[in-house]
Amino acid sequence: MTPPAEFDRDLTRAIERVWALLEQIGRRTTDAPGITRPAWGAQEELAADAVCDFARDAGLQALRDPFGNISMLMPGQDAAARAVTSGSHLDSVPHGGNFDGLAGVAAALAVVAAAKAAGATLPLRAIAMRCEESPWYGTAYLGSRLMLGISTLDDIGGLVRFDNGRTLRQNLEALGYPRRGEPVAPLLNSGNVRNFLELHIEQGPLLETEDIPVGIATAVRGNVRFPHARCIGAYAHSAALPRRFRQDAVLAVAQLALGLDEFWARRIAAGDEDFVSTFGKFSTDPALQAMTKVPGEVAFSLNIGAASKASQDEARSFILDLVKTIERERKVRFELGEEVGTAPTPLDEAMLRVLEESARASNIRTRRMPTVGHDTAMFMRAGIPSAVILVRNQNGSHNPDEALQQEHFAAGVRVLAGAMLRLAA
Amino acid sequence: MTPPAEFDRDLTRAIERVWALLEQIGRRTTDAPGITRPAWGAQEELAADAVCDFARDAGLQALRDPFGNISMLMPGQDAAARAVTSGSHLDSVPHGGNFDGLAGVAAALAVVAAAKAAGATLPLRAIAMRCEESPWYGTAYLGSRLMLGISTLDDIGGLVRFDNGRTLRQNLEALGYPRRGEPVAPLLNSGNVRNFLELHIEQGPLLETEDIPVGIATAVRGNVRFPHARCIGAYAHSAALPRRFRQDAVLAVAQLALGLDEFWARRIAAGDEDFVSTFGKFSTDPALQAMTKVPGEVAFSLNIGAASKASQDEARSFILDLVKTIERERKVRFELGEEVGTAPTPLDEAMLRVLEESARASNIRTRRMPTVGHDTAMFMRAGIPSAVILVRNQNGSHNPDEALQQEHFAAGVRVLAGAMLRLAA
Repeated sequence: MTPPAEFDRDLTRAIERVWALLEQIGRRTTDAPGITRPAWGAQEELAADAVCDFARDAGLQALRDPFGNISMLMPGQDAAARAVTSGSHLDSVPHGGNFDGLAGVAAALAVVAAAKAAGATLPLRAIAMRCEESPWYGTAYLGSRLMLGISTLDDIGGLVRFDNGRTLRQNLEALGYPRRGEPVAPLLNSGNVRNFLELHIEQGPLLETEDIPVGIATAVRGNVRFPHARCIGAYAHSAALPRRFRQDAVLAVAQLALGLDEFWARRIAAGDEDFVSTFGKFSTDPALQAMTKVPGEVAFSLNIGAASKASQDEARSFILDLVKTIERERKVRFELGEEVGTAPTPLDEAMLRVLEESARASNIRTRRMPTVGHDTAMFMRAGIPSAVILVRNQNGSHNPDEALQQEHFAAGVRVLAGAMLRLAA
Repeated sequence: MTPPAEFDRDLTRAIERVWALLEQIGRRTTDAPGITRPAWGAQEELAADAVCDFARDAGLQALRDPFGNISMLMPGQDAAARAVTSGSHLDSVPHGGNFDGLAGVAAALAVVAAAKAAGATLPLRAIAMRCEESPWYGTAYLGSRLMLGISTLDDIGGLVRFDNGRTLRQNLEALGYPRRGEPVAPLLNSGNVRNFLELHIEQGPLLETEDIPVGIATAVRGNVRFPHARCIGAYAHSAALPRRFRQDAVLAVAQLALGLDEFWARRIAAGDEDFVSTFGKFSTDPALQAMTKVPGEVAFSLNIGAASKASQDEARSFILDLVKTIERERKVRFELGEEVGTAPTPLDEAMLRVLEESARASNIRTRRMPTVGHDTAMFMRAGIPSAVILVRNQNGSHNPDEALQQEHFAAGVRVLAGAMLRLAA
């Protein structure tokens, strides 16, 4: 199915308008350096209001669920009926960029607004979700969890926001949720969401480097995380202790980090691009360290990503074996601490093909690649066939320098629109 | 020369008494865990006062130079006249042990007090020095530098103590130095110090492991130090950035640390026991680090010790070459910062033989070994023939668990006493 010329013209116009909306919300939530839209905070609510105003101006219904998540529908469309759904999140990390999350909200809104303008009556739904980013309450996807009924307010309402010290429930109530006297959007689930599609900026440089505007995600990477790992050796005089007596915690963790880096290099050499490994935190103890002391302790974090369960398990085994070897060789003790993480999830192959077909119809080049966790992961957990469209973007994300170009955004929205129309037809 | 039986009895008694002095000062400068005697601070001054009181009780003169360094002499002995001199330092590292420094002060005091009690009139001098440890003002030997005129207060008076933020000059003045109206000890130099001997606890486990009470030092290791080195990479999303794009500062510094550790292992394999290498500080930036971010910066310290200039130079070249390789491979930039350090110094062979002769006369087993920097290094720089006696000690030094046994201390003092009497005769 090729979208009619009329829809295409309306889509071009809608893309221009949502781009202006993106810029406007960005300006109004600036918090130099960058953008801050705290989850269930004033700036995220400002974005929610601006999105609802835009939707209503475009002739759409805009409803909020009891947690402030927004559903935007055609006039007269039953909010509880099955629809092809797209969207992303409104919040940002502290001092992040304008596009991680908000670009996917704007994209979905452009598609539904264009369909309305073109007079289509297809079952489409654009959504804007709250609280996807993990810094605010220490864990991710809280808005979509509540919206999909995966978590309840009783489960997670007591989580505390790191910056204002108030609970999720208190922050929700401070914004007036649940909104009494306003029409309320029903919770979503596999009964009323036929498919979910999320457009998101690419958070790495692959598309930029390869000059490709749109990526089609093959899987959401899972991760194995040790947020609070430690290695314990023994402090000693740096010059007086011969090498064979040392229990040097820095060398021990350095050996673990480089060992895992070599493991990664071997995986790449074997054609597997889906593994990542990061020691984001690595610190001797500020109270006990000295230039003239053998370091007796290192605190570190370890974060492994993998696109398949087998790859994840293999990496975990490699780590645990290497830890044992290093403990023996260097007379240290590792305390890896709590292991957290998520399982990797392959994305729906049929939907990938619909996306690629949509891209071909608009002459937009794409590339398959794995992606990281987005709200999409929660839709998949709810049993909804889902896909992620990645859009070429400069300077990564979660930083003030996110730089999405309008032409690449437009290409992503066209791929999204074609796929939504195909899936809804 | 064998010391007469009377001197030997007086020495046994003096050792008992200075051992009690050591314990008393330790109790009064406890700062759990361990001991803290800050350089030109209240607890170091308390130790100075206790040492002077002890000396005067023993019938000795106790004089302070304008920097609070103490000279203890026989009654009537000309403070400016040539004497065989021994001593060590009063300060400790933060939360260190009681014996690093103070044991050498007590040892020298025992010898001079015993000589006085025995009615000897030999030219002997015991000294107690300030500020040997480097943490306080970022560099070592400040007390002996001032005492020997190697540095002046104009040179170093502006250095800031890390814990109280006041300058060396301000801390000195707060304690009332220079003491007006008190007899002042002259500065020392090669004209009034015939030989210098320092007794010091061994800071490694060799003597303990080999069950030998006393070590005779062959050389003071020099060092090459980079106290404030940094590696700058680039922060990025930990899951979204492929390996080939990463500029990971943790992996870069880990590679440098392990590279140097392998260099060290090769030196040992080639029969060279005199090299040491330590990365005592290694930290990602607490304000910018995250489990989910590629680490963009690491601050670290690097401390190399070597017993010869050639070995030191070879190590420095190895480091600089490896840094260049890592910069190229990992797309990072190292800023090693200021290089500080000292040249290695061989100790006086004639004095080593006097010490070994003294030990044999008392049936005390010894072993030759290199040592690390002590105040002795400054006496050697001043052209004074010098030696270091190491005493068996458990658990290293610069930590709360230093554990000198009285019997090993007594053995060290006997070796020192025999050598001082021989040199002064």
